[in-house]
Amino acid sequence: MLELRLVQGSLLKKVLESIKDLVNDANFDCSSTGFSLQAMDSSHVALVSLLLRSEGFEHYRCDRNLSMGMNLGNMSKMLKCAGNDDIITIKADDGGDTVTFMFESPKQDKIADFEMKLMDIDSEHLGIPDAEYQSIVRMPSNEFSRICKDLSSIGDTVVISVTKEGVKFSTAGDIGTANIVLRQNTTVDKPEDAIVIEMKEPVSLSFALRYMNSFTKATPLSDTVTISLSSELPVVVEYKVAEMGYIRYYLAPKIEEDEEDTKA
Amino acid sequence: MLELRLVQGSLLKKVLESIKDLVNDANFDCSSTGFSLQAMDSSHVALVSLLLRSEGFEHYRCDRNLSMGMNLGNMSKMLKCAGNDDIITIKADDGGDTVTFMFESPKQDKIADFEMKLMDIDSEHLGIPDAEYQSIVRMPSNEFSRICKDLSSIGDTVVISVTKEGVKFSTAGDIGTANIVLRQNTTVDKPEDAIVIEMKEPVSLSFALRYMNSFTKATPLSDTVTISLSSELPVVVEYKVAEMGYIRYYLAPKIEEDEEDTKA
Amino acid sequence: MLELRLVQGSLLKKVLESIKDLVNDANFDCSSTGFSLQAMDSSHVALVSLLLRSEGFEHYRCDRNLSMGMNLGNMSKMLKCAGNDDIITIKADDGGDTVTFMFESPKQDKIADFEMKLMDIDSEHLGIPDAEYQSIVRMPSNEFSRICKDLSSIGDTVVISVTKEGVKFSTAGDIGTANIVLRQNTTVDKPEDAIVIEMKEPVSLSFALRYMNSFTKATPLSDTVTISLSSELPVVVEYKVAEMGYIRYYLAPKIEEDEEDTKA
Repeated sequence: MLELRLVQGSLLKKVLESIKDLVNDANFDCSSTGFSLQAMDSSHVALVSLLLRSEGFEHYRCDRNLSMGMNLGNMSKMLKCAGNDDIITIKADDGGDTVTFMFESPKQDKIADFEMKLMDIDSEHLGIPDAEYQSIVRMPSNEFSRICKDLSSIGDTVVISVTKEGVKFSTAGDIGTANIVLRQNTTVDKPEDAIVIEMKEPVSLSFALRYMNSFTKATPLSDTVTISLSSELPVVVEYKVAEMGYIRYYLAPKIEEDEEDTKA
Repeated sequence: MLELRLVQGSLLKKVLESIKDLVNDANFDCSSTGFSLQAMDSSHVALVSLLLRSEGFEHYRCDRNLSMGMNLGNMSKMLKCAGNDDIITIKADDGGDTVTFMFESPKQDKIADFEMKLMDIDSEHLGIPDAEYQSIVRMPSNEFSRICKDLSSIGDTVVISVTKEGVKFSTAGDIGTANIVLRQNTTVDKPEDAIVIEMKEPVSLSFALRYMNSFTKATPLSDTVTISLSSELPVVVEYKVAEMGYIRYYLAPKIEEDEEDTKA
Repeated sequence: MLELRLVQGSLLKKVLESIKDLVNDANFDCSSTGFSLQAMDSSHVALVSLLLRSEGFEHYRCDRNLSMGMNLGNMSKMLKCAGNDDIITIKADDGGDTVTFMFESPKQDKIADFEMKLMDIDSEHLGIPDAEYQSIVRMPSNEFSRICKDLSSIGDTVVISVTKEGVKFSTAGDIGTANIVLRQNTTVDKPEDAIVIEMKEPVSLSFALRYMNSFTKATPLSDTVTISLSSELPVVVEYKVAEMGYIRYYLAPKIEEDEEDTKA
């Protein structure tokens, strides 16, 4: 039997909004340590990895490991029916073919339960090795979202370059070129406004803006985003989910050839 | 001659928004007691009944009973041109073929008058007998609107069931089932937040969500909605219009056969 | 060399939004006195005239007169990437074929530069003679915008009539007629709320609402708008751009024949 009670139910609503455009169907894996998901996007280019640790739930009961295949579009439709202040409980029986989402209003005068059929989904769990990154940028998530959106109006590919001076986001397209440079800035009033650049080695990599824009759907989850870059490794774009976990997006850089096209 | 001056003109704007999607053309009936409308929706399934009592107008002159046929879409276009704080006056001559809407800004520096052709509309006024209802639910109107909208993302039909425990709204569709239960709750800070259930007999009836969602267009008119239910009677969904009247929607329950389909 | 630094960069963003729907491609003319544009709309009916005086810029360097042909749609895409508090600098080399827009965030931790190709655009600069107007109306710009939008839901043409009583905006269409009268009102708390009518001679002229609605895209630039009217002269609809200039729209009145159609 599975029963996971999340007081801050809006987190689960935001998690779904962060992945439903990228992934249609996926297995949610429940174990004693947490509720997680790992899935390739539908074009098999980007990887999403979600973890919500068991300690983050008010009540977490998972008698045995369960993998529940869900259509994320349908799951999102149901979660949209939860109020932003509702407590959400996920329930399933071992061996059952449905999952139930229960929404309790803070005043307990409204209780909703939504039951959804589970699906059988083939999926292989990829091992993601820990890696050392040449450069790691931490910045306000809404600034990153704004930059990706702005550059998309000019070009299709973003070149992210980290040097001692800062991090540069560049693109080029039919109507012209664009370069946006952020300097390290840690003297800020609110720590979430800081721009922190940890550079071991300078790095310059190209990525499809389309995917970056999908990743920024997670912006409401966290005030900051961390971008980890290394040549020949997929970039990791990470958003923390409160104190209880994270959502990470992995995307392979475009090869040299493509990069040429986007140089200003 | 007809001259009705309504200081809170926004009420008339909201009334039009509440009925214009349901009814295309209708007769507004003016008598010494008030300004009223009764009309079937365009598919002849639901009935709308509006009453604005003469006492609610700052000035109410209606020399003889008048029935004015109007296209509600066009009337709504004109009323949208009134500011939310404007005073609205409805004017017509006996036997004339036009109606004039006059909008006065609160500071009296802007006066608009919009003249619209009247139409000849055949309509029979149905007598709606007073009835005893098995159960009456009073609840916040935005909560009812939210529930109808949420359930529409899952199914087409809502089953409304009133028992001692409370009122349950249920639906079922391809992606799963949903049940939302509200408990009576009268210990609230604001009286309009109360959920009050007057149950003489338990009742369980099915309705098309499409119509319920049309009715909830009246939500801006009133903080509360009253739902009156009896087997073999149309449901009445009523919104008060300030202290001066009401808008009531009538909808026949779906027959047993349909109900089966929606059982969870 | 050209280098124009505008601290209140949002003004330039708003200027572009005010003209990009009316004009596709246009020459911006830079001289020692200012940055200006004059262009016919794409259907060659209305004329737009923009002036930003050199004194309004924090830094203004223009070594020799330059005429820079730009696609306003593309320019607008780039300016939308500037934050509302950003400082915008326009840069170009004499004889170069590109222009660069630089955006600096107020905290100087984000610097963006967008480079756009210039175009060769044939254009003749029309001399606009100073004229005496029979009537000049100054009113809140959002009120003018609202009136044009409201009348558009009824008809295609607006008749603007100025008399001693005030200014009247009228239209007529299939669903009826509309008249909106504004009275002079100078006893207001905020000077920008005043309605000031300078009438030398009464005047009544007809204009296509489609163009008037395009002109009101400039509403965010200024709290007030000035409408200058004379028989047999194009109307001038003017919005001030802060203390540094203006944007003026010119539109010829419709001829008598058309006017007849719109009389109530």
